Amino acid sequence: MAETPQQAQARMDQETAGAKQAIATVERNYERYSNEGKADSIATLYTEQGRAMQPNGPALSGREAIRANEAQNMALFDSKLKITSENVVANGPIAIESGTYSFQATPKKDAPAGTSPLNENGKFLTHWQQVNGQWLIAELAWNSNQPLPEPAPLKTGTRKR
Amino acid sequence: MAETPQQAQARMDQETAGAKQAIATVERNYERYSNEGKADSIATLYTEQGRAMQPNGPALSGREAIRANEAQNMALFDSKLKITSENVVANGPIAIESGTYSFQATPKKDAPAGTSPLNENGKFLTHWQQVNGQWLIAELAWNSNQPLPEPAPLKTGTRKR
Repeated sequence: MAETPQQAQARMDQETAGAKQAIATVERNYERYSNEGKADSIATLYTEQGRAMQPNGPALSGREAIRANEAQNMALFDSKLKITSENVVANGPIAIESGTYSFQATPKKDAPAGTSPLNENGKFLTHWQQVNGQWLIAELAWNSNQPLPEPAPLKTGTRKR
Repeated sequence: MAETPQQAQARMDQETAGAKQAIATVERNYERYSNEGKADSIATLYTEQGRAMQPNGPALSGREAIRANEAQNMALFDSKLKITSENVVANGPIAIESGTYSFQATPKKDAPAGTSPLNENGKFLTHWQQVNGQWLIAELAWNSNQPLPEPAPLKTGTRKR
């Protein structure tokens, strides 16, 4: 009754091909929602308990935390997000994907003085979950390729670059 | 011949329990190799093509790149790594795990002047692959919970905090 290793591999290859296509569609939506300032819509791309494991801050857990964080950033910046998928592997209801991103954020005219623009390239690893036939983000961790800025010289840092 | 959804879930639960235990063992080794300065041994915990998706630098691809990077850090620092596993899900030869870590690094006596200590807490997402019955790290992305340091005031930054 169990699959042979060959049958399992063939099934996973087929599921991976399907997941890759579905994930590409979700990522085009993620980019569009991000670029158009639609925080609510971004949150729906995650599972109910989805986690955005952002760098340099605590993980955001659940759709509401993710939405609120996006809305806060969108109030300050116009942004341009580009996601490039590289590796996908799926098996049944789970998939893992890695890739790269670029993100530019330009302060809006009414942003507080001193709000700095952002121009970042980085990489990500995503845990996808198929829920009622739909691939959603269960966990997403990302980080920048850029070196840390030099800390201000007069402060005592606990951080090594 | 295919599993029912209930059979698939029961099998995944069993595989997840097994993977969880095996991964815990690998992580105790990761901590020990890290704390004892064994760069070669750390590299063997990754697949041949394994990727360490480190923050604030390019991803390290393959065991040799991972070993060399570890060796370079270990020459400068004595360190203490603690890994706490939180969520694991496995299905056949793949598993996804998330958790948190703490990492303290103290410059060695002969480290160049200005080498700063590091005291970091963060989170990670790991893509595990079972190769010949052994769970290995295929991809590992992590990032710090700490805010970015304030950039030095006289430089023009492209980074928003």
